[in-house]
Amino acid sequence: MNIYDIAEMAGVSIATVSRVMSGSDKVSERTRQRVLDVIEQSGYTPNVFAQGLGIGTMHSIGILVPDISDLYMSSAVSYLEKSLREHGYNCLLGCSGFDSEHKAASVQMLLSKRIDALVLVGSTYSGSGASSEETEYIREAAAQVPVFLINGAVSGDNIFCSVCDDRQAVRDVVRAMLSFGRKHILFLTDSHSYSAREKKAGYEEALREAGCPVDEALMLHVPNRIHPVRDLLLGGESIPPFDAVIATDDGMAVGAVKYAKVLGRKVPEELYVVGYNNSSLSVSCEPELTSIDNQLEQLCSGTIDHLMRVLDGEEDVPRRIVLPGSLVQRSTTQF
Amino acid sequence: MNIYDIAEMAGVSIATVSRVMSGSDKVSERTRQRVLDVIEQSGYTPNVFAQGLGIGTMHSIGILVPDISDLYMSSAVSYLEKSLREHGYNCLLGCSGFDSEHKAASVQMLLSKRIDALVLVGSTYSGSGASSEETEYIREAAAQVPVFLINGAVSGDNIFCSVCDDRQAVRDVVRAMLSFGRKHILFLTDSHSYSAREKKAGYEEALREAGCPVDEALMLHVPNRIHPVRDLLLGGESIPPFDAVIATDDGMAVGAVKYAKVLGRKVPEELYVVGYNNSSLSVSCEPELTSIDNQLEQLCSGTIDHLMRVLDGEEDVPRRIVLPGSLVQRSTTQF
Repeated sequence: MNIYDIAEMAGVSIATVSRVMSGSDKVSERTRQRVLDVIEQSGYTPNVFAQGLGIGTMHSIGILVPDISDLYMSSAVSYLEKSLREHGYNCLLGCSGFDSEHKAASVQMLLSKRIDALVLVGSTYSGSGASSEETEYIREAAAQVPVFLINGAVSGDNIFCSVCDDRQAVRDVVRAMLSFGRKHILFLTDSHSYSAREKKAGYEEALREAGCPVDEALMLHVPNRIHPVRDLLLGGESIPPFDAVIATDDGMAVGAVKYAKVLGRKVPEELYVVGYNNSSLSVSCEPELTSIDNQLEQLCSGTIDHLMRVLDGEEDVPRRIVLPGSLVQRSTTQF
Repeated sequence: MNIYDIAEMAGVSIATVSRVMSGSDKVSERTRQRVLDVIEQSGYTPNVFAQGLGIGTMHSIGILVPDISDLYMSSAVSYLEKSLREHGYNCLLGCSGFDSEHKAASVQMLLSKRIDALVLVGSTYSGSGASSEETEYIREAAAQVPVFLINGAVSGDNIFCSVCDDRQAVRDVVRAMLSFGRKHILFLTDSHSYSAREKKAGYEEALREAGCPVDEALMLHVPNRIHPVRDLLLGGESIPPFDAVIATDDGMAVGAVKYAKVLGRKVPEELYVVGYNNSSLSVSCEPELTSIDNQLEQLCSGTIDHLMRVLDGEEDVPRRIVLPGSLVQRSTTQF
């Protein structure tokens, strides 16, 4: 006996059975009574029945992040949780770290908690781009519940993605730097994720279209922490001279501002610095940091909007949300 | 038929039945077989049986925070999650907001997910101090699973607390400010939580013991955000003159540094500023912010250490961890 049997015996859709179980008032009294009669004849009380089928009153959404101490992730979870609560849903959060085995295990753990949908935050869940096997666990999860990626892209049935157009956003900033006469632009990143690869592509494209060389020595992989980046740049005998910096997260950009302060290089007169994510670090910094806002709040609200439509049984929900990044100018650039 | 019946029929302890269910190798083969025989006679398969009893292989710890976008909370969850993962436990996170009804509902939601223990992060869970009814939902939860508070104090069976001695830490800083000739010390807070009340008490005690007046006009309730605090201080006709600032979180302290910059007041020569939590904002700020480190990582690791001992059945686990705060001097003070 399962939900399909009940629906068939009552002559209604599965969605209607589900609505009756969850106490929705969108079902006519007559239909409601017919469904309840069938359930009663099946020998279960509605409550136990609902629990056994995993439908009904739980209303939980699983959210997975690699690292909740990251400002971007914790902001996303905060936006998602507030929006879900307004819709009457609880959120269950898992932290997966960055390695594949833990990511797959964390997804399984959340699925075992009877969630209605799964939201994966962060482009690490899109894999390194090396092989589609890396994201097989996401397609397996999508066979059970709808899966929503924020800042990531994976293709497959029942998978919905939302991304900021990071490539375009970085391309626009590098173009602007070049048009204001900056020629040697340092690119700082801490990641090889989908999003980091898009940002790198935007950087290289802007240089190429301007006929500038793409110098690998100006593309550094560094930790996303202020003092380590400052010290690395101060000690960087092997780094060619640079007159602008773009970083894939604010922490690294603030490190570049601190480096300039130690050497007495004037920001922005002698050095432009642009961060990414428009986090609270950018406002704490002095001079305050120009940063690309990746529209996280809108990505999150768009995702929850689509998630609710999918759970309501709507069939034509868009598979992809793409939002443009937006440059928030403060005092470390003069465009 | 429950775990007590099985234990009695097999002539073993409940703990032994639990070990057999979870596949522990600490049980002799003979005992293991006897327990499995009883379970088999009971007509259940071990798996379904374990699921029904809520024992066995889930290994999940529930963690509740009011607001995961807060740097303190997200750092705590990150420390807890890493430590739990090393012990082979998953974490399930809930976000409760600050109002009592949602806090109680979020605790219920986590309990319904079959967690082994509950960790509450943030002193909002200790209530406003007005009435013990405010924390009744915590004692009710503790009747089901052990409950651990981080940065909070609630008394009751099966409840374990860990706090930083915020009162002492603030008292020490205010004493130091007074001994360096500062007389008009502004106290900024965004909260009425247990921890905020302790900090306020430390501030008042230091002033009183030095024979200084406690001026309510120098104790401001403000949002924990940089620009709003800056603007509030800039427009503050009703705020008496001040030569030092202590804030209960770094965001407010950075706001005070920004205020001084706008007016050209020299920090630390003309104005001392001390923040709280030693967050990444304190390093991003310029001059870099002196801040009280509330030993969050140690509170979290101590909590998980005690949690594991409680789950192992140890009986004399201390009910309270108290750690001293530690002043991290940077460039906004000269002690």
